[in-house]
Amino acid sequence: MKAEIIAVGSELLTPYRLDTNSLFLTSELNSVGVRVVHKAVVGDTPGEMYSSFRHALDRADMVVSCGGLGPTDDDRTRQTVADLLGRKLLCDEAILEKIRERFRRFGRAMPEINERQALVIEGATVLPNPKGTAPGQWIEVKGHIIVLLPGVPHELRALMEAEVKPRLAHLDIRERLFTRDLRISGLFESDVEQRVSPLYAAYPESDTTILATARGIELHPSIWSGDPGKAEKTLDEMVSRMALALGENLYSTRGETMEEIVAQLLTEHQATVAVAESCTGGLLSERITALSGSSAYFLGGVVCYSNELKSSLVGVPAEMIAAKGAVSSEVALALADGIRKRTGATIGLGITGVAGPTGGTLEKPVGLVHIGIADERSTRDRKFQFPGDRERIRNFAALNALDAVRRHFLFPAIGRS
Amino acid sequence: MKAEIIAVGSELLTPYRLDTNSLFLTSELNSVGVRVVHKAVVGDTPGEMYSSFRHALDRADMVVSCGGLGPTDDDRTRQTVADLLGRKLLCDEAILEKIRERFRRFGRAMPEINERQALVIEGATVLPNPKGTAPGQWIEVKGHIIVLLPGVPHELRALMEAEVKPRLAHLDIRERLFTRDLRISGLFESDVEQRVSPLYAAYPESDTTILATARGIELHPSIWSGDPGKAEKTLDEMVSRMALALGENLYSTRGETMEEIVAQLLTEHQATVAVAESCTGGLLSERITALSGSSAYFLGGVVCYSNELKSSLVGVPAEMIAAKGAVSSEVALALADGIRKRTGATIGLGITGVAGPTGGTLEKPVGLVHIGIADERSTRDRKFQFPGDRERIRNFAALNALDAVRRHFLFPAIGRS
Repeated sequence: MKAEIIAVGSELLTPYRLDTNSLFLTSELNSVGVRVVHKAVVGDTPGEMYSSFRHALDRADMVVSCGGLGPTDDDRTRQTVADLLGRKLLCDEAILEKIRERFRRFGRAMPEINERQALVIEGATVLPNPKGTAPGQWIEVKGHIIVLLPGVPHELRALMEAEVKPRLAHLDIRERLFTRDLRISGLFESDVEQRVSPLYAAYPESDTTILATARGIELHPSIWSGDPGKAEKTLDEMVSRMALALGENLYSTRGETMEEIVAQLLTEHQATVAVAESCTGGLLSERITALSGSSAYFLGGVVCYSNELKSSLVGVPAEMIAAKGAVSSEVALALADGIRKRTGATIGLGITGVAGPTGGTLEKPVGLVHIGIADERSTRDRKFQFPGDRERIRNFAALNALDAVRRHFLFPAIGRS
Repeated sequence: MKAEIIAVGSELLTPYRLDTNSLFLTSELNSVGVRVVHKAVVGDTPGEMYSSFRHALDRADMVVSCGGLGPTDDDRTRQTVADLLGRKLLCDEAILEKIRERFRRFGRAMPEINERQALVIEGATVLPNPKGTAPGQWIEVKGHIIVLLPGVPHELRALMEAEVKPRLAHLDIRERLFTRDLRISGLFESDVEQRVSPLYAAYPESDTTILATARGIELHPSIWSGDPGKAEKTLDEMVSRMALALGENLYSTRGETMEEIVAQLLTEHQATVAVAESCTGGLLSERITALSGSSAYFLGGVVCYSNELKSSLVGVPAEMIAAKGAVSSEVALALADGIRKRTGATIGLGITGVAGPTGGTLEKPVGLVHIGIADERSTRDRKFQFPGDRERIRNFAALNALDAVRRHFLFPAIGRS
């Protein structure tokens, strides 16, 4: 079954806003066996909307729209689809009463304009909206399904979950999408591609998407299949072979973030961590604390941007900074060990580097980052040369500092000094 | 002149990737007078692509595509458009030589497969690609313009700038888009809407987009006009009236971020800042240091997630934390003043709050955040109750802490304790 998603809204045709609903819709549709073959974004011009819906029905078995169900003159999705199908719009008294009731609950009278939201296309099934005033509509016509959903993300999600997916489950869809979510650090996108692409030929029924993000590389092998057992088995086999090819760089086969993996390891080992960061400027702490519950294993950190603070707050000897430079292996180790001692954490992390775009030299170019890690018994450090702009370098540095904690627990024998 | 943007690529139909090129393209097209009336995302299926290009030509004067110009079997944009126009694909020897030369420069022989990238649609103007192997193509046909661009963002940008915009400037386009970029803190989207929407009726020729982001509210009034003088004058007038309606919450009329505004103020006053943050967990430092050059005014900070570190690293009295609680006005002020004294900064900032989702109480619910600011002469603090999830609360807190610095310099008389 092939679907097209139409996002309705003039603001989606400005340089400021993207349609993001379609990612969620695609994921949900794929999971019940519907493939998305086309996406469109249209404004609220009647002619444009009409032509978009008409062409979508030519191409796809199913058309899912989001947006244009509000109460104003600009909300034309209902009227457009009614016109296209040659059907009437009828006022549904039950919906009208629900909308009135919703306004009453918030202590207001319903503005007359909202009556429009009770208009239903002749023959449509109404999909009640638990989170807002605009109900969705489900229309079956000549072998096609048209689903109209509101554009407000949390309303769309609630309706998709409660009303659309159960209805799709009743359809006899043979194939659905099976997928995995692998996460990789320490390799570039092209390296990952090179390591896993020889596998593709062995699994011609599969399709693999590689995605480079601020949080590492994601690898999504997927298979459209009518045989869940076989698909899952094939994916398991692919993941095993990919894991062999990726080695210790693979940090999750279940879509966990590096922060989550590190949280699990610290909790498991009843360990705590504290950080002293320079070029990442707080990003490492921010990543760790983005997880709720991080206070159980994260004590805190110091953003020692100036050399004075490296000495006064973390205890890095001023002479060391003078002799080796602030961006050096020695300072990274002193930051890691210093913050560990000053906070009493099990593990200390230190980051120092040149995030750029200025400040680089021939000896210490932009992108050079030293990451130190210390526990009670030992310290170790790694030196990186990251590519990209300031933001990318800082993201690489924070990710690899977290990765140092993962490697510390999983591969303790490697590289200890 | 009306344009449609077609993004080509199967990966853009997965739940993982959005077409982001279209935002850049829209901004560039608008600036030379071309309106975007429709956007489409298609995979690499020949039938789908053909129908998308055909419908786009029905609807728009100009069709701009990105993607599908690579060297593989899946790269079908050239062939699709040639088929649609009933034209041949011809091998352009000059392009072929350039591609070979590019490979030679990187010390490699050109794979045979790349010959495909030298195929040009009969009658098309070749747009040289300074950043990659796939040139763009510009085709004029029956009053329509078709522009084929590569999908790699930095190649697309270079080609748009160097080749497409100069050609569009030669067209006789009467109207173009004039716009402003206002930034607001301290108000919700609905408050901003309520304050500025009464102005809309006075300027029916204008259109205003409101956008709520992690970095505050953006307001983009815009006018399509053939009279630059008049449009700019009207926008200036609108901005003045919006400024009156928004008061001190308006922090930029030129699209600067809060970090940039704060950087300007600190530099102007030859002041430095240091921060002690708890619930934001490093986000405030990260924001400040995301700007290159921030080391001139940012000394550093402490992420004092545990109460012990609030005392040991910033000097907040343990008795104060015990008596008032870690989330209190007193602790926010002690953090601000403590970090200022320990670092020697001109200004100290302190943040403490409940980011959630757990940890809230009836007295101190999730979203409660105290922000303190201290200089040599005085301290002040503000108490906030932010809505939303953990991420949104942390973003609000970091933005308002930066805003405290702005207000400190611009409105020094207000609220000093």
